[in-house]
Amino acid sequence: MLNLLKTFLIGKPLLTSELSHQRLSNWAALAVFASDALSSVAYATDEILLVLKQVEGQPIFITPWVAIAVTTLLGIVAVSYQQTIHAYPDGGGAYTVSKENLGTIPSLIAAAALLVDYILTVAVSISAGTAAITSAVPALYDHRINIALILILLITVANLRGVKESGILFSPPVYAFIGCIGWMIGVGLVRFLIFHEEPTQPPLPPLMLLEPQEPLTSLIWLRAFSSGCVALTGIEAISNGVKAFRPPESENAGKVLKRLVFILGSLFLGISLLSWLYGITFSDQETLLSQLATVIFGKGLFYAVIQSATASILVLAANTSFADFPRLASILARDSYLPRQMQNLGDRLCFSNGILILGACSALLVQLFSAKPHFLIPLYAVGVFLSFTLSQSGMVLRHFRIKEPNWIGKTVMNLVGALATTVVLLVVLRTKFSHGAWIVCLLIPALVYWFILIRRHYAKFDLQMSLPLELPSHRQLKHTIILPISHIHRGVLSAIEYARSLSHNIRAVHISFDETSDTNMKSEWERLAPDIPLAILNSPYRSIEKPLVEFVKKVDAEDPQDLITIVIPTFVPPRVWQNLLHNQTGLQLHLAFRELRNVVVTMVRNHLQ
Amino acid sequence: MLNLLKTFLIGKPLLTSELSHQRLSNWAALAVFASDALSSVAYATDEILLVLKQVEGQPIFITPWVAIAVTTLLGIVAVSYQQTIHAYPDGGGAYTVSKENLGTIPSLIAAAALLVDYILTVAVSISAGTAAITSAVPALYDHRINIALILILLITVANLRGVKESGILFSPPVYAFIGCIGWMIGVGLVRFLIFHEEPTQPPLPPLMLLEPQEPLTSLIWLRAFSSGCVALTGIEAISNGVKAFRPPESENAGKVLKRLVFILGSLFLGISLLSWLYGITFSDQETLLSQLATVIFGKGLFYAVIQSATASILVLAANTSFADFPRLASILARDSYLPRQMQNLGDRLCFSNGILILGACSALLVQLFSAKPHFLIPLYAVGVFLSFTLSQSGMVLRHFRIKEPNWIGKTVMNLVGALATTVVLLVVLRTKFSHGAWIVCLLIPALVYWFILIRRHYAKFDLQMSLPLELPSHRQLKHTIILPISHIHRGVLSAIEYARSLSHNIRAVHISFDETSDTNMKSEWERLAPDIPLAILNSPYRSIEKPLVEFVKKVDAEDPQDLITIVIPTFVPPRVWQNLLHNQTGLQLHLAFRELRNVVVTMVRNHLQ
Repeated sequence: MLNLLKTFLIGKPLLTSELSHQRLSNWAALAVFASDALSSVAYATDEILLVLKQVEGQPIFITPWVAIAVTTLLGIVAVSYQQTIHAYPDGGGAYTVSKENLGTIPSLIAAAALLVDYILTVAVSISAGTAAITSAVPALYDHRINIALILILLITVANLRGVKESGILFSPPVYAFIGCIGWMIGVGLVRFLIFHEEPTQPPLPPLMLLEPQEPLTSLIWLRAFSSGCVALTGIEAISNGVKAFRPPESENAGKVLKRLVFILGSLFLGISLLSWLYGITFSDQETLLSQLATVIFGKGLFYAVIQSATASILVLAANTSFADFPRLASILARDSYLPRQMQNLGDRLCFSNGILILGACSALLVQLFSAKPHFLIPLYAVGVFLSFTLSQSGMVLRHFRIKEPNWIGKTVMNLVGALATTVVLLVVLRTKFSHGAWIVCLLIPALVYWFILIRRHYAKFDLQMSLPLELPSHRQLKHTIILPISHIHRGVLSAIEYARSLSHNIRAVHISFDETSDTNMKSEWERLAPDIPLAILNSPYRSIEKPLVEFVKKVDAEDPQDLITIVIPTFVPPRVWQNLLHNQTGLQLHLAFRELRNVVVTMVRNHLQ
Repeated sequence: MLNLLKTFLIGKPLLTSELSHQRLSNWAALAVFASDALSSVAYATDEILLVLKQVEGQPIFITPWVAIAVTTLLGIVAVSYQQTIHAYPDGGGAYTVSKENLGTIPSLIAAAALLVDYILTVAVSISAGTAAITSAVPALYDHRINIALILILLITVANLRGVKESGILFSPPVYAFIGCIGWMIGVGLVRFLIFHEEPTQPPLPPLMLLEPQEPLTSLIWLRAFSSGCVALTGIEAISNGVKAFRPPESENAGKVLKRLVFILGSLFLGISLLSWLYGITFSDQETLLSQLATVIFGKGLFYAVIQSATASILVLAANTSFADFPRLASILARDSYLPRQMQNLGDRLCFSNGILILGACSALLVQLFSAKPHFLIPLYAVGVFLSFTLSQSGMVLRHFRIKEPNWIGKTVMNLVGALATTVVLLVVLRTKFSHGAWIVCLLIPALVYWFILIRRHYAKFDLQMSLPLELPSHRQLKHTIILPISHIHRGVLSAIEYARSLSHNIRAVHISFDETSDTNMKSEWERLAPDIPLAILNSPYRSIEKPLVEFVKKVDAEDPQDLITIVIPTFVPPRVWQNLLHNQTGLQLHLAFRELRNVVVTMVRNHLQ
């Protein structure tokens, strides 16, 4: 029955031989790789406005200037990633680049930063997508956590079914989003120019403000800038996935990266400009895009289209992490830095364990941060710029090492990229540390430590499990059997029978909670198996495991040469759910005896009708 | 290490002999049994105002009249419960009374209604308690679900530690709440009379209202009344717990019930009256008590005291369900209507499983209904009045059957109670069905069906597990051993050794995902155990279980007389967390073979250093 449910949810298993790779056309690739980067347009300007909200007079005229600075940084980083694309035609993720050029620890730092970022991408994108929905339907605002959790559940199931990052799936929402936002920017600008309005002042904040107002200092500019930098997330996706392009792969990937940067920069600049022109301020309950669309088009059909496209591209952005996280986790598992199960291909040829872990972690984040994008975003930028910095620095060292043609020019480009991202990383750490970035600063070293611990465990394990050079000679085992009996029932008969077939040295044992029933037990046992001695042990704390483990240790000490086999009578009800009606003592004992050496556990099952 | 954590969280195990019962003085008993009933004052009037909010002009003048009707009902129900207290000095819960007087099915309906209500009590009380907190600190409003979940977690842990319903724990918050609210009502009335203000009109609703406004019809009166009836929840607690009173138990319990009804009625009427006088309307973000306290005392120290006392009594109300739910569940388990594990006394002598299930269910409700009391309350009243009705009807039939002195007068009192609660039940069903009561209407029959199913399973099980009259004669078993091998490692050696000690008829089997490694496997096996045949099975769908189960079935069919023992080599890492780094194939296989008859599963463990 559980199997049926599984098949219903994730579909029939696929043959291993069905694993295949497809190549994407440039237009499809733009849709597939751009959703993460473009979707940040839906929340990046909100984050700038949120900073300005706490400043005297809400100086939203800053926004376009901050947007220009962020777009300049975007250009620098993009030029830098062009080098990566050509240097690593098989895909140059930050982990790969750092491992090859910087060494183990930096590569593990990059890996940890990436894993954390993939989780945050899901949490932020889904929260922002939910905000797009609740902006359109305010009655749903109170249900936003449940909406976000359901979206994560749906994406998880879709990925367990093995959804492919196909152009057919990604193109409509991505191009709809680009079209809608582009159209809105155009109409918004034209309307503003024709009607020649003065840039609107934001409504003055109400007198009773909860948050204290600060003056406009250079720290505010830095905070606004580092908030806006969230627009850069996802820009590295193309450099990871060069292999998915049609040949010549690197040239095509480079072209698509240029297009992406142009579109992303234009949309982000346009939105930021409009937010100033129309005097829009940060609102907790309604996104900037929703406010702009309402002002420019009114709450009609086109408004609904914009909100739907926004929600869709954000869901797709989360979906890309569901491809990236499990892939990186499987690579780390191959290198023994994560549990080997992360490499298991599920029924539908996807890395099921990675998908499940990503789903669970992002759901936890959404829950803890109440599905509010601006609670989550301060955690986001640290990991992004950390992996940018490591990746670019790795490229610089690579150029020095390989010294390919034109290496000096390329080095300069990557050096500028590395320096710029380092500076931004420091700015982000300075301005966002107390807003939540400290969590990531603790998490990344913890993950690196964990990677190393896991690798060390596997090394030890492989050493211990390898066969000895000399195979031991055959040895005749002497058996002692222990038979735990909770009460006398039919299942005990088959356990006795099995025990007798192994050895004549059998010891039955009963754990007593209630001394009144013991005499009854004794006389029944006399009738059943007079040849097997029965020990009755009291358990004043109502534990079954502890006295049994003590008993087994005592029997073992009596004759250390013997191998002890514990024969546990257990029963299997006809339906799986009926297991809930029984104590599962068998399984409990199984776990209780796991620490004991020289002990074998045998389950003799009785099937009920 | 897990054990250490458990001990840290819930404390050291207690001896079974430490189980004891204590008697409560009347003042302590009032605190212990009244918290649930009194705490409803914190939200009952809000519910009336919520109904009126959707009516043209927000006719809050209705509120006191509705409150009078509810208080009258309270009096009737209380008189009726006086009879129960005297008839069942050992405790007359709805389940007991229905079982004795109405038969099995009505008693199961009462039990289902009670279980659902205990869960809802926790969810509603904790949500309302959180609302008291977020009314005082609006910045926490967005975090209310997490606050509510943490509160549930804390109460669950406290109950797993075996917290007792002691007068010392309950008296301070309960009497503080009574005192604070009483004082507020007094001050509020006096202030109003002295300043001779006209009853304030509520502020007119803003023009852009999301909800359509209805005219004031008699259906509105009914809806307001049925919403106010939530004030009656918890009134039956005393009749369940007569045994906890000092002798003469019934007299004392009767006295305490009278006091409780007087206090509850006064507070509820007072609050409802004040809400009208001060023209307070329903707010989603701030509770009525918080609004009243702000108007009357301002947001100072006394305001903080009121909110703290309110939050505390609501948490205590939730805590009473943590005593009642597991107790009822254990009674149902004793009668075989629930899994027998519900009777297990945990380390701290509490019914741990019931506590955990209640915690999980109420957390789920809080999550699904976003910790909003008014989303949850429509589900609440159905179960409450269903169990009231069954309990009172049972009392009527009991009087007819026993015909004790003055039975006619007593019958009349219970009959009036039964009729009143039946009418209210119908009103609640009529007015709240589409607001969520339908969920409970589906849930209660489902639970009853499940009770019956469970009882039937246990009956069948006991029959099958009872010993045959004639014990079978000894029979010599013939063993066939199957040895599943994933790859060749040191652990395989001990498994081979063990298998050889059981039988010479051994079959090794390897599941292959990747044909290239098979030849290597074969030659290694030749060196290791040339006398044991190795079968290599392909698994194109990457499943280990399916081909193995097929293989075992095939081997079984070859010689049905043999008993098959599957010897699984497995290893135990030195630390528990390291189990996460291995595939747990042993456990997986264990579960996969559970359906197979004539098969015994043996785990041979290898301990790593």
